[in-house]
Amino acid sequence: MNQENYKLCEKLISSTYVQQGSQAKRMHENKVRQLLEQRKWPEQGWDDQTIEILLSDLAAMDSNNFIDNCGVGEREARLASQLVARRHYRLAHGIGRSGDIAAIQPKAAGSSLMMKLTNSMVLDVIRQSGKSEGGCRYLFAFSISVHSAQAAFVVPMATGMALTLTLLAFRQKRPQAKYVLWPRIDQKSCFKAMQTAGFISVVIENKLEGDELRTDLAATEQKIDELGADNIVCIYTTTSCFAPRVPDRLEEVAKICATHNIPHLVNNAYGVQSTKCMHLIEQAARVGRLDIFVQSTDKNFLVPIGGAVIAGFEGKLLEEISKSYPGRASAAPTMDMFITLLSLGSSGYLKLCRERKELYSYLKAEMVKCASHHGQRVLETPHNPISIAMTLDGLDRDEATQLGSMLFTRFVSGTRVIAKGVIQTVNNHEFTGFGSHCDHYPHTYLTAAAAVGLRKEEVDQFIQRLDKVLAKCLKRASSHSGAASNGKMD
Amino acid sequence: MNQENYKLCEKLISSTYVQQGSQAKRMHENKVRQLLEQRKWPEQGWDDQTIEILLSDLAAMDSNNFIDNCGVGEREARLASQLVARRHYRLAHGIGRSGDIAAIQPKAAGSSLMMKLTNSMVLDVIRQSGKSEGGCRYLFAFSISVHSAQAAFVVPMATGMALTLTLLAFRQKRPQAKYVLWPRIDQKSCFKAMQTAGFISVVIENKLEGDELRTDLAATEQKIDELGADNIVCIYTTTSCFAPRVPDRLEEVAKICATHNIPHLVNNAYGVQSTKCMHLIEQAARVGRLDIFVQSTDKNFLVPIGGAVIAGFEGKLLEEISKSYPGRASAAPTMDMFITLLSLGSSGYLKLCRERKELYSYLKAEMVKCASHHGQRVLETPHNPISIAMTLDGLDRDEATQLGSMLFTRFVSGTRVIAKGVIQTVNNHEFTGFGSHCDHYPHTYLTAAAAVGLRKEEVDQFIQRLDKVLAKCLKRASSHSGAASNGKMD
Amino acid sequence: MNQENYKLCEKLISSTYVQQGSQAKRMHENKVRQLLEQRKWPEQGWDDQTIEILLSDLAAMDSNNFIDNCGVGEREARLASQLVARRHYRLAHGIGRSGDIAAIQPKAAGSSLMMKLTNSMVLDVIRQSGKSEGGCRYLFAFSISVHSAQAAFVVPMATGMALTLTLLAFRQKRPQAKYVLWPRIDQKSCFKAMQTAGFISVVIENKLEGDELRTDLAATEQKIDELGADNIVCIYTTTSCFAPRVPDRLEEVAKICATHNIPHLVNNAYGVQSTKCMHLIEQAARVGRLDIFVQSTDKNFLVPIGGAVIAGFEGKLLEEISKSYPGRASAAPTMDMFITLLSLGSSGYLKLCRERKELYSYLKAEMVKCASHHGQRVLETPHNPISIAMTLDGLDRDEATQLGSMLFTRFVSGTRVIAKGVIQTVNNHEFTGFGSHCDHYPHTYLTAAAAVGLRKEEVDQFIQRLDKVLAKCLKRASSHSGAASNGKMD
Amino acid sequence: MNQENYKLCEKLISSTYVQQGSQAKRMHENKVRQLLEQRKWPEQGWDDQTIEILLSDLAAMDSNNFIDNCGVGEREARLASQLVARRHYRLAHGIGRSGDIAAIQPKAAGSSLMMKLTNSMVLDVIRQSGKSEGGCRYLFAFSISVHSAQAAFVVPMATGMALTLTLLAFRQKRPQAKYVLWPRIDQKSCFKAMQTAGFISVVIENKLEGDELRTDLAATEQKIDELGADNIVCIYTTTSCFAPRVPDRLEEVAKICATHNIPHLVNNAYGVQSTKCMHLIEQAARVGRLDIFVQSTDKNFLVPIGGAVIAGFEGKLLEEISKSYPGRASAAPTMDMFITLLSLGSSGYLKLCRERKELYSYLKAEMVKCASHHGQRVLETPHNPISIAMTLDGLDRDEATQLGSMLFTRFVSGTRVIAKGVIQTVNNHEFTGFGSHCDHYPHTYLTAAAAVGLRKEEVDQFIQRLDKVLAKCLKRASSHSGAASNGKMD
Repeated sequence: MNQENYKLCEKLISSTYVQQGSQAKRMHENKVRQLLEQRKWPEQGWDDQTIEILLSDLAAMDSNNFIDNCGVGEREARLASQLVARRHYRLAHGIGRSGDIAAIQPKAAGSSLMMKLTNSMVLDVIRQSGKSEGGCRYLFAFSISVHSAQAAFVVPMATGMALTLTLLAFRQKRPQAKYVLWPRIDQKSCFKAMQTAGFISVVIENKLEGDELRTDLAATEQKIDELGADNIVCIYTTTSCFAPRVPDRLEEVAKICATHNIPHLVNNAYGVQSTKCMHLIEQAARVGRLDIFVQSTDKNFLVPIGGAVIAGFEGKLLEEISKSYPGRASAAPTMDMFITLLSLGSSGYLKLCRERKELYSYLKAEMVKCASHHGQRVLETPHNPISIAMTLDGLDRDEATQLGSMLFTRFVSGTRVIAKGVIQTVNNHEFTGFGSHCDHYPHTYLTAAAAVGLRKEEVDQFIQRLDKVLAKCLKRASSHSGAASNGKMD
Repeated sequence: MNQENYKLCEKLISSTYVQQGSQAKRMHENKVRQLLEQRKWPEQGWDDQTIEILLSDLAAMDSNNFIDNCGVGEREARLASQLVARRHYRLAHGIGRSGDIAAIQPKAAGSSLMMKLTNSMVLDVIRQSGKSEGGCRYLFAFSISVHSAQAAFVVPMATGMALTLTLLAFRQKRPQAKYVLWPRIDQKSCFKAMQTAGFISVVIENKLEGDELRTDLAATEQKIDELGADNIVCIYTTTSCFAPRVPDRLEEVAKICATHNIPHLVNNAYGVQSTKCMHLIEQAARVGRLDIFVQSTDKNFLVPIGGAVIAGFEGKLLEEISKSYPGRASAAPTMDMFITLLSLGSSGYLKLCRERKELYSYLKAEMVKCASHHGQRVLETPHNPISIAMTLDGLDRDEATQLGSMLFTRFVSGTRVIAKGVIQTVNNHEFTGFGSHCDHYPHTYLTAAAAVGLRKEEVDQFIQRLDKVLAKCLKRASSHSGAASNGKMD
Repeated sequence: MNQENYKLCEKLISSTYVQQGSQAKRMHENKVRQLLEQRKWPEQGWDDQTIEILLSDLAAMDSNNFIDNCGVGEREARLASQLVARRHYRLAHGIGRSGDIAAIQPKAAGSSLMMKLTNSMVLDVIRQSGKSEGGCRYLFAFSISVHSAQAAFVVPMATGMALTLTLLAFRQKRPQAKYVLWPRIDQKSCFKAMQTAGFISVVIENKLEGDELRTDLAATEQKIDELGADNIVCIYTTTSCFAPRVPDRLEEVAKICATHNIPHLVNNAYGVQSTKCMHLIEQAARVGRLDIFVQSTDKNFLVPIGGAVIAGFEGKLLEEISKSYPGRASAAPTMDMFITLLSLGSSGYLKLCRERKELYSYLKAEMVKCASHHGQRVLETPHNPISIAMTLDGLDRDEATQLGSMLFTRFVSGTRVIAKGVIQTVNNHEFTGFGSHCDHYPHTYLTAAAAVGLRKEEVDQFIQRLDKVLAKCLKRASSHSGAASNGKMD
Repeated sequence: MNQENYKLCEKLISSTYVQQGSQAKRMHENKVRQLLEQRKWPEQGWDDQTIEILLSDLAAMDSNNFIDNCGVGEREARLASQLVARRHYRLAHGIGRSGDIAAIQPKAAGSSLMMKLTNSMVLDVIRQSGKSEGGCRYLFAFSISVHSAQAAFVVPMATGMALTLTLLAFRQKRPQAKYVLWPRIDQKSCFKAMQTAGFISVVIENKLEGDELRTDLAATEQKIDELGADNIVCIYTTTSCFAPRVPDRLEEVAKICATHNIPHLVNNAYGVQSTKCMHLIEQAARVGRLDIFVQSTDKNFLVPIGGAVIAGFEGKLLEEISKSYPGRASAAPTMDMFITLLSLGSSGYLKLCRERKELYSYLKAEMVKCASHHGQRVLETPHNPISIAMTLDGLDRDEATQLGSMLFTRFVSGTRVIAKGVIQTVNNHEFTGFGSHCDHYPHTYLTAAAAVGLRKEEVDQFIQRLDKVLAKCLKRASSHSGAASNGKMD
């Protein structure tokens, strides 16, 4: 209500009550004011009521909701179903303008504001610079910051597709380049991101150091020499990944990129939740070259699947990427981020990150116990801050697959069982040992992970179920192999 | 409730009432059964209650909603905000699997079913084959069918980006080809679709025939000869467009494509709502070559902006496109389509299309009256079934722009005013006469359109407001030009 | 957003767009302003968006939603479940203050405003005086007005309980009186209303005039003489009722009440939808005495069951009734009315009433046809504007009951089958011929009704199903009675 | 989905996934099964998803939602507004049948089930008998049980109106009785409950014992002798109340009632949250006579205002009360309880009660500190487990009122300031010292309370604000009184 209407209320009920009510409304508006003024991630999360007041106000600014709108010529943002209208808070205009996904849409002031504010907050999430009060202590310990980031925006695309979009934007700048250098990581979408962009993928095999699989820097340099720096679109590294692979040696790669003047693109899919991953990016950008890092919204911020944050250190490059999206895009992932960032507040999110870190240690400790109980061990991968792998020695490929299925039907989701020697062809490229990030990893193993949002009960249930399933599978395996040896004796 | 629970209810209330209630529930389930069995667009729209029952059942099948789920390793589909959970009906897993946007996701049976059913219905929308009862009469008159279409799927992308994705998939099949032949249409995203895909755009200027701008077939053939058919990625035509441009000569282009064995891609952005556009596609595919046609979900189906339907005549090609999306994608546009298609039913949608067609005639008649009243005329563009243009002769560029602004501030959205001689650079390409689809269109003009969802009141309001604004602008212009001529006399 | 916040938005997006957006918001606020200024039922219904904006603003004024509220001592209006909070739009304080259901609650300015505005609109519904523009024609033909009504308010109670509350308030004014004179109407809750209030019910049997059952005025006068006017709490009449009973002779009763100085209470349960019922009340109040008339919210306004409107011609009396409710009451029925009245607008409601009237004629005509087809007839009850009765001659009690059940299991709800000679005891009072409003009605019959909200398809389905069921039952009955007669011959 | 539909899903996606999904749905159904089987308050709270699945299933059983329903004659449960339909989960039929608020409604199997289940759970809440696992420890310490209660049901009425309804039911059994004996408690609705029922209130003044105001048993006995036991409707006592009044001596009153064969009605408004109050009731019923005890839903269960639970020790009496409600009633308070009880589970509620008890001690300790700092003291009222009073000696009536207002405008709601000597007339009865439960309480004071749902931050904020306001008011008061004394000196 505006002041005029509050005044009219005083004819119906006592002015004291009206004034108190209008003052209370003002408190909601003050939160909005702070957001508009500072365009930072609020430290304290907002209640749902304030969030919905703001969304309702934004919706009222979009032309599809104008009471007297006359959309002759309008081909979009009319909604047939009230269920659909409600679930989008009546914001139907998407984000961006035909030429630019980060541009303001004249017909949709509200949607445009939501997009701008979300992208501002997202940049703040990435940078998380100098909060003064209250949060200090946490920030020290669990800082998720890449302070020097210059711009960031949400795109309604999978991380892989956002990487493709970035690669396509690179092409405009290096039209002659054809090769992408890529330290191997065995996830299809990572590989497809290059293929879809139409580039030739140059796979750099990882080096086994102890149990860990790490970037082979020498091989990288050698490939540059071989192909010629100018023919290389970029080096495309990865932070967050399944153990026993660990985050790439970002600093060293960044130095190589600087030396050879090659762009450097980082797949930081679920790295925002980890200070280690963010620190790697910050450091790499400081000591060498790192152009763009891309992260998933769902894997880091507990929103539905389907969005990514493209971030970088140079505003102009980011602008070129945003301008390469042909058309207006779905606002759904942006709205999910908008609501969730406001709802959590930075303190809420840092709390989740802290809990994640603690659960990582807890999960590891429990897996160590469980493994030793079954004559297995947890692989030593200290550089991987999220994923943990445990050997399944003694299981053959079928038995390992079986173990995976048994976990799945027991409602354990998200673990992966990696058997030795799997060969898989992705877009005509044949990968040996697919899943293990290298041709011949010495163990069959399973991975689990402590991702943001994990709860302690889940860990406990997992260990229980794993323990049972392991016992069953290993027993069966040993009896088989016993039978097999017997057979061999003949 | 399952039968066991209904049985238990009989201990609380009379079994007669329970049985009637369970029978009533069955009616909802029967609708679901029909959908699952036939996987067609229901003729009669569903009520919101049935839609929400189905969405709730689907949500219960996704692992993020399993009561005892233990997602150790799960990095996605956990939701922090209840507002977000509710607005997505708790379906958080997106669509597709890392390697394929149309693949089933093991952790999300419900989301996968929603995706499969939506794509099935969308194909049915496109094909609209042989409804037996009731709808016959409408289908005859307002058939929106491309009977021979083989596959279709929703992607959570703008039409332009969906065109880019298709072009990228073409690259895999014709790796050496660099050129896209494109009969000019002045919308940025159409042009950017090629640029982002990394191809060289070969602009085919339109021919002026009467007031209409039509495909220059000779120029097209000439370009093919010049560049070599093998070097051409595809010919990329357009159906729905702003008058005085009209849909491209699809049949003739299709024949050329067949002759030269060149792929043919059609931008059918808002063409589903028009039998003419759909008929053009059907015919072109029959007489020549037409590979893929892409349409916007929001421009045709009254859903929020952000989705497109990629459709075609060869299942394998469609599969290749779906497999080129690297990652899992947002399910939001799919869900919006799912809800809206069920809610409207085919009869509801055909009713909307019929009303649109009638309003097109009405809008045209009213514009003819209004134009003649101000000494202007409606351009003769009989081949354009949606958009209408009216001359603004006598207004210079500033005056025309001014008129546009005046309409905008009077809550008229969606009209476009095209002044002569605008030069605009898009991705380094300079377009003369930008907005008018040719270098030198003989008139300044404005366009309006009768798109699906338009209401008669809007047309009436538009004509009223236009009439006033025109009077004001033309008066001012004539006094200016009078002043100007006076000046010239000196 | 307040002006300050809109101003801040201009730093994010163009001020033109912000201003247009803020102007658009103002249109919503203007509707609210008009409501607050005039406190009348808007002629044009509001869209859901405006309704929800207002509800959200009201919620923000209630202390349970104050951001910094410190409710030490507060024992109420805290909500444990977000589902519950949402469904009440966070308005949790109910209506009224401990001593008065229509009083303003200091802790709940928003709820209080909603209550005041609802009651204002409800009074306007009842009075519907002199709308100037647009609605005139309808109002002439379908006026639902009791122009001289002075006050009205919604109570969260069944009509029967609202009648009890009114009777209890009467007691305070006539402490010695014990008897309520009540022209018989066979609905339990009507009778219980008196019993629960602790009064002695004096049943006035109806007179059969043609097929109609009408008020026996002579018997009424005689009872007054017998018991003494001062010992009579009130005469308690009924308008809306099942045929063949018709509305009581309100004018004549009102004159009797005036002569003897006896209060007159009218049960107008579903009479608001009928101009006849409303006219009866208006006339009765003009020519005689009529104190209070009570109507159901659900039966007249298409809201969930559970509210009533108590209306009358003297503000002070209404105030006494509202002050007799001990405690604060549920706001749910008030909110349902608030939303529904705003959503329909008076023109929407009058349209529904007009349709109802037309469907009444249609239903009657169809029943006449169906009856004559089966050798039955529709009873002549021209004074009953809503309910219609049709004979079931030839069916015995069991057969009639069976017919009722058959309709019920065929999803026909709301019809009543009345067999002859049913005896029922309600609160120790034995009613002969219960259901038929008199001891010995000459026919077995069934009733149907054209209530507001009925749709033509329902009538058609009803006639179809009735036709089949009648055929079956009458055939069975005639074969039985044949068998019986045969038996008797022996 | 039923099994047939799950089977059909297997044609769309892998049967393994379908089976897992259907198994997951089964887990929700198992919760429902347990509820239907045991009809007890679940120990573990349900998630919102399961609650909404059940509500949706119930809605599908109500005739207003039957897909092919033909409600000819139906005058209710049609809904005009979708906002209203949604907020009631489409359950529109209210609860009860015309003659009985606890009866099953044939047209609304779903609503009837919800009502039955809610009342079952509510009885379980009251009784909370022998949970075996897990909850034991809590139950021991924080048992809220009245084990011997026989029946309970929710009515959509304020506590006061529920007391009136109960009194009206008593009248049917003791038609000659006129007097209600009532140990004074100064809340309007408590007094009005008797007045509205039409009885003569006999006020028993409280006895001051230390700081506490307690039941005067001798005066009670004397009144019985004076008026004659048969002329007394009931003795009407109170448990939860504002300090310095404490719960009535229920055991002793119950013995008196037993001796004289007088019904005993207890106003247990917000007593469910306190083991002391519940224990008093249990004991009173064991050693003497206690017929009915009434409690507020909102004050105990964190639901919106407007419902009460009527409970007692004799099923037949409860049935008579439920049968005295004339009409069908709003289901809103029942639904709020249904959702909230399921959402909290007994363990969630017991946790809230435990926290409340701890906060009571904390609040008291803080008030003691604050009081002593200002030369005041907390009154010694050990028998009151919820409310705490603190002296405001030295403030005159205006100053005390002023202090109350200052707290209110500082967003402190729920405290009450009681000045000496206030005279108030309620329904013609003049109360001296109104607010303090006796004619001349020796102190001016304020009360605060630790009600269920209170948070520690609120206590801290309260103490801060109180401290400031007290300082200001006492300073002003002392300067005034100084001025006054000075004045007197002259």
